[in-house]
This record gives sequence, structure tokens and C-alpha cells, in this order.
Amino acid sequence: MFSDILQDILQETSGGIGISLMGYDGIAIEQHLAEYEAVDLQLLAVEYANVLKEVKRAVEVLDTGFMEEVTVKTEKFLVVVRALSEEYFVVLTLTGDGNFGKARYLLMRDAPKLREALS
Amino acid sequence: MFSDILQDILQETSGGIGISLMGYDGIAIEQHLAEYEAVDLQLLAVEYANVLKEVKRAVEVLDTGFMEEVTVKTEKFLVVVRALSEEYFVVLTLTGDGNFGKARYLLMRDAPKLREALS
Repeated sequence: MFSDILQDILQETSGGIGISLMGYDGIAIEQHLAEYEAVDLQLLAVEYANVLKEVKRAVEVLDTGFMEEVTVKTEKFLVVVRALSEEYFVVLTLTGDGNFGKARYLLMRDAPKLREALS
Repeated sequence: MFSDILQDILQETSGGIGISLMGYDGIAIEQHLAEYEAVDLQLLAVEYANVLKEVKRAVEVLDTGFMEEVTVKTEKFLVVVRALSEEYFVVLTLTGDGNFGKARYLLMRDAPKLREALS
């Protein structure tokens, strides 16, 4: 069920490299990688789980409400992370020239569907 | 010098609450807060320094090139962070309905000026 949702998001996002549904423990529930890519999605997911844990902690200390979205832009990649629940989040990785706005929009649009599929 | 640049960015960004020029050690070099706001910018800056350190570490492990920008969206706030150098970054905080695109654009536009002012 969430497999199809993830694959659709990846295909609809121009420049999409990979997508992972993850737990904060760093364990991926489901991953999809665009065919031509050679990215270590597992390593990427684990590293972003650590980042997300730190952001979550900061957000709790600052009392600024539920963490919804985190994005990271580096020279080579754009990463969009959307929190789904206290336990799960989804990470979408794009090439540096990928469609950042579309990625954010699709994750926001499909977050309720993913949440439902997880419960 | 960087005081004026920071103040201009804050004023030009609709929904801008505060802006800080920070070191990764969590110490602010310069901060401005919109007049009507009662946010603990010092605490926010320290917490985001921790987040940025974790992102920087992840980006180095993943070898995805220089970290350029990190954004965090929570229920109440939007935070845009732009890395300036190995030591410094700038944090712009907006209300949840603030102009996210403008904030990203202004920080990108003025990053070279801030870098120059710091050196």
C-alpha cells in the first residue's frame, strides 16, 4: 500500500533519486531508488534519522509545535523530509536541480495517505 | 556592517520574527528581533547550532558536497538556515504563514555580502 504511494511521489518529482519511509531508529520500512542512480539510500536514511532526531529534540525544547518538514540543500542534493508521526518520517532525495517545490507539495499532499497506510 | 544586512533581510521578509548570525559553537555574533515579538532568540540560536552541527556531520559522512541551506517547518514557525563558512551560519525565523520563498531568496542573495563582512 505505502509502496505505491512512495513510488508515485518519486516518479512525479522531476530529479527524484530515491525515497524512504523510515523510523527514527534509522530502520527503513520501504525504499525506492530511481533506476539509474547509485546512491547509498540506506546510509543516507540512517544519517537523516540522526538529523531528524536532533531537529525533533530542538523543536521540543523550543516548544514551537509539531515538526512538519525539514529540508537540506547541499552542493549535489536536495533532501526533503516530512514527519508522519512520533515514530515515522519519509525522506525524498533529489538532484541539485530537481523540482524542490513539487517535492515539498507531493509529500505534504500524500502525508495523510501514508499516515493512514501505516496505522 | 553585517548588522545592516541582517536588519534589511528581516525587514524585507514578510512574517520575519528574528535573524541571527551564529557560530557553530552556539554563540551569536549579531541578532535582530522584530519589535513586537517575544521569542527567545538566544535559545533558538543555540538549539539550531546543535541541529546544524548534526546536519553538517551527516553531509560529510554522505559526501554530498558543501551544506548550503537547511529549513525547518513546525506548526508555529518556519526557520531558514544558510551556511556561510566552516564556522558561521545565519538563521532567519518566520511566522508559520511567513514568506518562505522570499526568506530563502534573500539569504541566498546576501550570503556573499555576509561572508565578505565576516572576513
